[in-house]
Amino acid sequence: MSEIVEHEPADVMRIGIVTVSDRAAAGTYDDLSGAAIRDVLSRWIASPWTEMYRCIPDDRPLVEATLLELADWHRCRLIITTGGTGPAIRDVTPDATMAVCERLLPGFGEAMRTESLRTVPTAILSRQVAGTRGTSLIVNLPGKPASIEVCLSAIWAGVAPALRLLGGTTFANSDSAPVRGPRAETGTARV
Amino acid sequence: MSEIVEHEPADVMRIGIVTVSDRAAAGTYDDLSGAAIRDVLSRWIASPWTEMYRCIPDDRPLVEATLLELADWHRCRLIITTGGTGPAIRDVTPDATMAVCERLLPGFGEAMRTESLRTVPTAILSRQVAGTRGTSLIVNLPGKPASIEVCLSAIWAGVAPALRLLGGTTFANSDSAPVRGPRAETGTARV
Amino acid sequence: MSEIVEHEPADVMRIGIVTVSDRAAAGTYDDLSGAAIRDVLSRWIASPWTEMYRCIPDDRPLVEATLLELADWHRCRLIITTGGTGPAIRDVTPDATMAVCERLLPGFGEAMRTESLRTVPTAILSRQVAGTRGTSLIVNLPGKPASIEVCLSAIWAGVAPALRLLGGTTFANSDSAPVRGPRAETGTARV
Repeated sequence: MSEIVEHEPADVMRIGIVTVSDRAAAGTYDDLSGAAIRDVLSRWIASPWTEMYRCIPDDRPLVEATLLELADWHRCRLIITTGGTGPAIRDVTPDATMAVCERLLPGFGEAMRTESLRTVPTAILSRQVAGTRGTSLIVNLPGKPASIEVCLSAIWAGVAPALRLLGGTTFANSDSAPVRGPRAETGTARV
Repeated sequence: MSEIVEHEPADVMRIGIVTVSDRAAAGTYDDLSGAAIRDVLSRWIASPWTEMYRCIPDDRPLVEATLLELADWHRCRLIITTGGTGPAIRDVTPDATMAVCERLLPGFGEAMRTESLRTVPTAILSRQVAGTRGTSLIVNLPGKPASIEVCLSAIWAGVAPALRLLGGTTFANSDSAPVRGPRAETGTARV
Repeated sequence: MSEIVEHEPADVMRIGIVTVSDRAAAGTYDDLSGAAIRDVLSRWIASPWTEMYRCIPDDRPLVEATLLELADWHRCRLIITTGGTGPAIRDVTPDATMAVCERLLPGFGEAMRTESLRTVPTAILSRQVAGTRGTSLIVNLPGKPASIEVCLSAIWAGVAPALRLLGGTTFANSDSAPVRGPRAETGTARV
């Protein structure tokens, strides 16, 4: 689990990566989805950022507490979860996310499902949501490693603008980020 | 109204068909939508199943009670409603469904509206939802007979996987079912 | 601010146009979005209608009170808002709309976002909703003037049918209105 670097500059954006999976938390298998999120963010974000990583079981109070810790205490501007978005009884990530968010952004879930459905018919089952809490944006991704880049691509053009609207600062996109048009949006980034 | 067959084998899946319509319940016209659901299921499901049919007026407490009876008492794994999904004051089916479901599956409503909108502009008015209660999946369809196969086609690839995730058993799709790729999913069916 | 014409015929439909914007309400800039709504309605509606216009700041209690006044007191059958649909802390229009509506029409928000996303990637951030209160239909549009016609086009085919289902009377579409197929729907209009 990564920890806060003691002398991290105040303007380095913190991003939470939260893997929600009984089996990954128990060490039954490697957390490939969390690694996929890390890989995508490394390629798409050009400005400095630091990661806060958590790998926890599918326990709703624990998911809520983890999101609250990352948003309110550690001031992560962006928190990306993976896993627990299906209809099974142990899938609780969207429920925990809705409980801690002050407002939901329905367009994120719609866009991710629409994009996923092009290749994965069972994406219709995903209950993934996105929402805001204070100046933090929380986004649910499915647990399947192959779905990470597909879903993040579908919403990425809205992520930097959302952070700017929520708190004035945002990150700069790299040239490989799936953002159409000029990179002007990132000109407002302070990081 | 169909009744439970006394000596029905325990592994025959029960499916509820619920027509919600003041006029059909009063006998003013034949229930063509309920018949359309029956026809589609007969063509698409290859494993044994038995139907529990209800035709009731647009009365919210009655719709809720009927869904509870079919899900909790009769253990219908799949419950398909037709009718009462519009914005009119008597349309209460989605409200009753949301009241009895423990979790909603927003992808189902999105997919059915998107598919319906290709041919019916007023499909935008449909408030149809889908959700789960225990091991049951409840899906709302519009009341128009022509919309039954269109809407079921849009979600069918997710229905058998949803039942498996909810309760371990599911049904086997026939070769004519609108499920892309191999029928492997149905290999997990116990029925 | 337009007022009720004293001797307005009872069958002239009232339509509310509500601009929600701190800056427009303070006179910092002209309300181009409200004007764009007026322009679109003038071109698309063929039957008599009269406008009730409000321009108010992004204050949730005030937005709620304005919607209630227009729906319950002035009997506006259609109320179109513009502005306040984003994720920023001052954006409260969807929250106010959800608070006063008795039922939501999720297809409207989905359709407007889908259409907007074809040209504006940040449309994914819009939380715009639509819903009903009594016989009134309330629809949120974004605050950007260019988004007005795009969003209204995406839902217009459903507006006249929704009003008819809610209250028996509706308006007649002009030949330039974006309604596919025959104008038969408007044959039921009493205005």
